[in-house]
Amino acid sequence: MTNIELRSDERVDEIAASGIQIIQSREVFSFSIDAILLARFPQLPGAKGKIVDLCAGNGAVGLFAASKTKAHITSVEIQERLAEMAQRSVALNGLNEQFTIINDDLKNSMEHLQDSSTDLIFCNPPYFKVDEDSHINENHHYTLARHELTTNLDEIFSLGKRLLKTNGHFALVHRPERFFEIIDTMRAHNLQPKWIQFVYPKADQPANILLIDAIKDGKEGGEVFLPPLIIHESDGSYTKDVDEIYYGEH
Amino acid sequence: MTNIELRSDERVDEIAASGIQIIQSREVFSFSIDAILLARFPQLPGAKGKIVDLCAGNGAVGLFAASKTKAHITSVEIQERLAEMAQRSVALNGLNEQFTIINDDLKNSMEHLQDSSTDLIFCNPPYFKVDEDSHINENHHYTLARHELTTNLDEIFSLGKRLLKTNGHFALVHRPERFFEIIDTMRAHNLQPKWIQFVYPKADQPANILLIDAIKDGKEGGEVFLPPLIIHESDGSYTKDVDEIYYGEH
Repeated sequence: MTNIELRSDERVDEIAASGIQIIQSREVFSFSIDAILLARFPQLPGAKGKIVDLCAGNGAVGLFAASKTKAHITSVEIQERLAEMAQRSVALNGLNEQFTIINDDLKNSMEHLQDSSTDLIFCNPPYFKVDEDSHINENHHYTLARHELTTNLDEIFSLGKRLLKTNGHFALVHRPERFFEIIDTMRAHNLQPKWIQFVYPKADQPANILLIDAIKDGKEGGEVFLPPLIIHESDGSYTKDVDEIYYGEH
Repeated sequence: MTNIELRSDERVDEIAASGIQIIQSREVFSFSIDAILLARFPQLPGAKGKIVDLCAGNGAVGLFAASKTKAHITSVEIQERLAEMAQRSVALNGLNEQFTIINDDLKNSMEHLQDSSTDLIFCNPPYFKVDEDSHINENHHYTLARHELTTNLDEIFSLGKRLLKTNGHFALVHRPERFFEIIDTMRAHNLQPKWIQFVYPKADQPANILLIDAIKDGKEGGEVFLPPLIIHESDGSYTKDVDEIYYGEH
């Protein structure tokens, strides 16, 4: 394994069953199950394809995807600390050739990337509107990762429309309570939501995670609601589906 | 039991665990699981409430609801044969006082009903666009029940907006592949979808039935995706949830 320096607050975790190692720290936002579910949601392009991971954080979504495709992956992250961790995680896994880490505001993405160049965009954005919650977390790293302070849905999908090729895919993870706003904004930018999956904490609870795979310039109608993904059994253990995502098929 | 005459092609079925009897015939559209799921989906108003069942067919949705509320129920059905069967089923169950059956085109509903008078609307409408399928069923009764020949979403929700009180509920059963068109049209008529449930034939298959409970003049945002309802176990038997809907809790 490549020798990568860790800061005193950092640890190395493995991302699910991928064999990919990722540098994490409690001082900044760590990846959650949302990132794992997003990375395994859309069909991945092959070796000649281009993937862009927006709001990439410490790079978990792109890194997990890299265990399943040789496509080039560009990760865009505004926070210097997270982008720098992502860069070291890429090196740790010997994936420097496959990755470009851009530490910049998403607004400046087109200074680094080309129009209509991308086959697949991943995005695990901040979930909360700023006006929704006055108790903004005091840790600045967490606040930026959770709240729409530096970007919002309109900006993200506007960028998605520019970056994607016709029929390119935009794969998003978000919260179900903003579903209508999300699909309205996607469609306003010619991103047609085609496959939707709701994720439920338990079989008898409302959905708390939403996955959408939208197609640029896709045809309206015929949206598909994929089988429900349930995280926990009633006793709190992982369901077979989630167990397989984390640990692989037995 | 009241003595009601049956035609030679007719039989009497019981609607799930309700104790309600309903006259059915293979010559016309019979109620399906969709009607059962719709009737048990929204919260029902009490004895002083008013319910309207649009596209009522042989009256199954309203009749099933009548096992759980004393609210007045008005069923609107365009097909004379079906409306007449519904009227006899109402009599068969001794519910003449609770029901008004209107045999008329939905377009003429306001000749029989009052603006802003209704607490809850049920609607199990035709699912298919006329241009989607050139093989229109040759049985006229089935064709009208399945295809948007005499009505459409815009007309149904426009009527819903007129009939409902502020904060009244519109409960719809439909097909998931038309979800976006449905919620767009609902919202265009100030019906805010609030609770949504997807129904899956099996746990590993995409949804094939959609239930929506919308509120007239409801606030935007915060939509809730209720726990998934799965119809069959992998061996084809009913799941515990559906078993309870059909046969009651054991």
